Order: sequence, then structure tokens, then C-alpha cells
Amino acid sequence: MEALKYQHGCLNVLDQTVLPNRVAYIACRNAQEVAEAIKSMQVRGAPAIGIAAAYGLALEALSYNGTDVRELIDKLQQAKKILAATRPTAVNLFWALNRMESVWRNYEHVAALQVKLDEEAIRLHEDDRQKNTHLGRFGSSLISPRAHILTHCNAGALATGGYGTALGVIRTAFQEDKVEMVYADETRPLLQGARLTAWELVQDGLPVTVITDSMAGYLMQQGKVDLVIVGADRISANGDVANKIGTYSLAVLAKYHQIPFYVAAPLSTIDMSLAEGSRIVIEERKADEIRRMGDFQLVPDDAAVYNPAFDLTPSGLISAIITEKGVLRPPYHTALKKLFEGS
Amino acid sequence: MEALKYQHGCLNVLDQTVLPNRVAYIACRNAQEVAEAIKSMQVRGAPAIGIAAAYGLALEALSYNGTDVRELIDKLQQAKKILAATRPTAVNLFWALNRMESVWRNYEHVAALQVKLDEEAIRLHEDDRQKNTHLGRFGSSLISPRAHILTHCNAGALATGGYGTALGVIRTAFQEDKVEMVYADETRPLLQGARLTAWELVQDGLPVTVITDSMAGYLMQQGKVDLVIVGADRISANGDVANKIGTYSLAVLAKYHQIPFYVAAPLSTIDMSLAEGSRIVIEERKADEIRRMGDFQLVPDDAAVYNPAFDLTPSGLISAIITEKGVLRPPYHTALKKLFEGS
Repeated sequence: MEALKYQHGCLNVLDQTVLPNRVAYIACRNAQEVAEAIKSMQVRGAPAIGIAAAYGLALEALSYNGTDVRELIDKLQQAKKILAATRPTAVNLFWALNRMESVWRNYEHVAALQVKLDEEAIRLHEDDRQKNTHLGRFGSSLISPRAHILTHCNAGALATGGYGTALGVIRTAFQEDKVEMVYADETRPLLQGARLTAWELVQDGLPVTVITDSMAGYLMQQGKVDLVIVGADRISANGDVANKIGTYSLAVLAKYHQIPFYVAAPLSTIDMSLAEGSRIVIEERKADEIRRMGDFQLVPDDAAVYNPAFDLTPSGLISAIITEKGVLRPPYHTALKKLFEGS
Repeated sequence: MEALKYQHGCLNVLDQTVLPNRVAYIACRNAQEVAEAIKSMQVRGAPAIGIAAAYGLALEALSYNGTDVRELIDKLQQAKKILAATRPTAVNLFWALNRMESVWRNYEHVAALQVKLDEEAIRLHEDDRQKNTHLGRFGSSLISPRAHILTHCNAGALATGGYGTALGVIRTAFQEDKVEMVYADETRPLLQGARLTAWELVQDGLPVTVITDSMAGYLMQQGKVDLVIVGADRISANGDVANKIGTYSLAVLAKYHQIPFYVAAPLSTIDMSLAEGSRIVIEERKADEIRRMGDFQLVPDDAAVYNPAFDLTPSGLISAIITEKGVLRPPYHTALKKLFEGS
């Protein structure tokens, strides 16, 4: 099941807000429609958001019927702004938008630019999938046989171009017959672990057990977790990681229990412009995500609700960062500098 | 709003499974009906379970129309078994049942025994309320002005005879003008924090903010939590604490952030017969509590679910245990021994 299916002129987005109850695709034909799908989290996951945004710009170009390349580029600049304003934390969004912008800087004819943007978005999507398989192989080298692995949120095929970062590592390790159990935190408030990670692992025949977020420590205390692996929404130059709310608690719990804590992310998630994680903007989302579920009222109206969508894990709690270029070890400042200067 | 309202011959149980959406009482007229209310968690919280069970035995006695005291005592023994089989972890249940049993050991006439059991259950209820107010005063002495307090699950009026253990401490501190904010973990899967703690604090005019369980670490990292206070379902002779799942993770997080972690519980929660917590039976509840919410399917059918209702916090992570007899400090083995031998 693919999160994003692109046909020339139309991006079909798997609506992740209704999984696993319903499998439904939403057709997006311009940047605005893609922006809505990102905002409402019908598509989510840092790499998938970047890919969707790239397609959004391609669709915007293809839907242009004029012949004035300046007019088209104005339209694209507007579309870029709309897409950039959807969600603040995942850097892949801005990375993908900038990569698309570098295409339209160099074109003088509408038709050629349309083709080029279309191709670039498709390439970006395919690249991500391929990087994930490399990342998966590097990550699997860290995993010993009969592993019990805990993961949080969904850093899987649904969150990326199609294979997954954290779940890509787990998939590769499973193919190599090293995975005995995957524990998936349900990941409140939006339940990406329960609804998405469990669903996608079951589809692929992997053993998965869902727990509430509050059970992770108890599992570790009982010796049931050999390692933790999560994705990332943005990594600063020193290796601090912004990821789904709850990641930081897991990292502290892993440290306390002396369990390795791994972060899996493509280089497009790394923001070398930020010296440290404290400068990453943490998105706060609306209270109703916690207050209600469908017709159920979970929190009384007169009580306040705090709903940060992400948290920040300092690099000191992270055993390794797994990328498509290899496994990075502390000090991340040095490792990342070397990697980006070398590439 | 009282969790338990008793009138001679009828126990009205506030149905906590439908709060805060509906306020509804269920009438129980015998032990079996009380047992059902405990099992289904219409009444929950260690002290409240004990009180309800005591009323269950009183109701069983009052519903007896014969004149044979041996027959009545057989009936009570049966009822005791049914009530004891409802939930395994909270020790207050067994404590209350034994206290009631000590009454019927000494009686030879049906009518007198009925009166005595009725009185004993009412006394047990009133005692609990009174102990909570003492406990609240002792606990409040640990709290400094402008406190930001994190709590988990519901250890409030709804979980006790009427004032609360952890929330009793918070209530007293609030009356003394020392509480700036109470953070309530929503407490998955059954959301006692979101549904019950928030509701009862709002009713009393306390400032409360609900977070998901996964946000506690991030709050602490930001310096937003001055102390953590929770209730308990059973405390062993060395001070290990069984409490709602998620408590252990909070205790580790508090330790890591050097935040005091307090447990508030009456002496009836302390089980001096168990040397350490590892011998406490941790109840596992059905998967559907995590898998579904009303019509929503949160976890796909083919994924497994693990649902322990409690976890175990070792005494080494606990800064103090607050009881109606005073504040205990480590080593708890010595402090508890002294307390029980002295009382």
C-alpha cells in the first residue's frame, strides 16, 4: 500500500487519518489541495511530506495553461509559500521545496519547465525509496538475532517514499531473520503507531504488538526490549533530534535501562543550518486532537489541554544516527560535518 | 460528586466508565452486583474498591431473609470469594473484605450481625475520607508555593471515600494557595486522567491541563514540573509501589530530571505480607481496551496487544510515601516496620 501514488497531473494521497478502518485515496490536482492533505495529516511523516510537497509544485506547474514563464514562476512561488506554511517542524518539506525551486530558476519555456518539474518530483520520490533501502541495510547491521524492537509513531512506508526509515531498518532485519517482536507504541494523540505502524507491519507479515505509550518503561524493566529505533522530523548539526512527541521520554527510559536508542533518517532530515535542536520550531496542534475522539469527549471542556506534536531529544541520548550514507556515532557534530562536506 | 452513595440496602455507584459525558448512578443491591461494578471499573481506585466491597458484604447480609446465622455466614463467605475475584492488584480490596469478615466471626444472631456489618461498612467509608484529609495535610507540607504538579491516573475523590490521596494532597495545597497548575496525564487506555481527574479538579475550581502520557518527559525537560504525585494500588513492605501503568516511566523520568516523586496512599494500601513488589500480581486486562474506542478500531485485528493495568515502581525511585500517619522517607523497610509495629 503506497502513501503517495502519482500519475501525470494527479497525486493520489492515501488518507492516513481513516486507517485502519478504511483504505481511501484522495486525488490532489494542485498545490492547494496537497497543502490541505499535509495540514490535515492525511499524508504525514517527514520524508512523505517533502515528497508530497514536491508533487504539489509539479501539479501546480502542470495545471498552468498559459505561455508566460514569468507568470508560471510567480504561481510556483505562491504555491511554495502555501506548502511551506503547512507544518513547521519537519525540515524535509523545506528541503524538497528548495530542490524544486532550483529547477524553475533555470528555465525559460513553460512546457520544458513543466516536464522538468514533473520529472524532478518523481526522481525525488524514487530517490527517497532507494535511500531508505540503503539506510535499512546500514541499520540492520546494528541488530542482533531474535531482537525485540520498540518503535514509536510511524516511520514506515507510509511516512516515506515507500520503504520506511525506522521501519525500513526493521524490514531489512526481518528479511535477515533477526526480528522476534516489534513493539509499537500506540502514539497518542493521533495513534500513528496503533493505526499505521501495526497496519503496515501486519500487511508485510511482521510480528507486532501494540502497547500504550505509558507501557514502554515497564516493558524495558522486564527486559523485553533490546533496542529502540525511531525516525526523525529534523536533526540539527549537533545531532539533536526533533521527532514525534514521546520520543524524548523513550530516549531517557532507554538510557536508564542501558538499551541502545537509534534514530533512522535520510540526510534530507538533517538541518545543518541549525547549530542545535533548541532552535527547532515545535508545532503545537489543536486541543481537540486530545480532547475528543469522534463523538467521544475524553477531556471536559473546562480543562485546558497542551498538545505539542513533537519533542526534542538531545544528541547525548542517541546511540547512533542511521542514514543512507552509513551509521553515524557521537560526536555527531563532527560526523555530520564530515558527511556533508564529503558529499 | 460522590463515587459511592450508600443508603441502607442500596449502594449507588457513580458509573465512572461514562464520565465526563454522562453522570449516572447504578444501584447495587447485593455482592454480585457490586462485584460487576468493580470488574467493569464503574467503580475503580484502590480505596474505593475496598469500600465498595465492604458495602457489597453489608448488602449481602441485609438481603438475607432467613434466621439461620450459619446460613448467612456461608452466604457471606461465598460473597467474599466473588468480590475477592474481581481484581487482583489493589490490596485494599482484600484488606476491606478481611475487616468485614472479622465482624461476622463474632456474631450469633442474624439481625445483630446485619446491623453490625452495615455499620462497619459505613465506618470504613467514613474512616477513609478522614484519613485522606490527614494524608492531604501531611502531603501539602511537602509542596512549595506556585507549584506545578504532575499526576497520573485518578487518585482523587472518585478513587476513594471522597477526598482523594494524590488529589487530596493537591486539594489541600490548593486551599493553602500553593498550586499554580496541575498537569494530568490522560492515562491510556481508560483515560482516568483525562476523564476523571480533569473532571473532578474542574468541579472544584483547580487549574488543570491534560497532556498525553507521552508528553510528561518533554514537560519535565522544559522545567514545567516541580513534583510528581501519584496514588498506589499496593505497596510492599520495602516500599515498592504497584500503581496504574505508566507510573514507573514517570518515576524514571522524574529521577532523570531530579524532580521529587511522591506516592500518596492510606495504610490500607500497604501489604506488609509481601517483602518486595516483584511478588505483587499485575492484572492484565482485555486487548479491546486498547484496540477499540466505541466504534473506532484503533489497532488492526491481526496485530497483538499487550495490556498490563499496572506496573511496579521500585522504592529507590520514590522520594517519599505520604500516609495518614505522616510522611515516610527511605529506607521504607524500616519506616514501614516502625509504623505498623507502633500502630
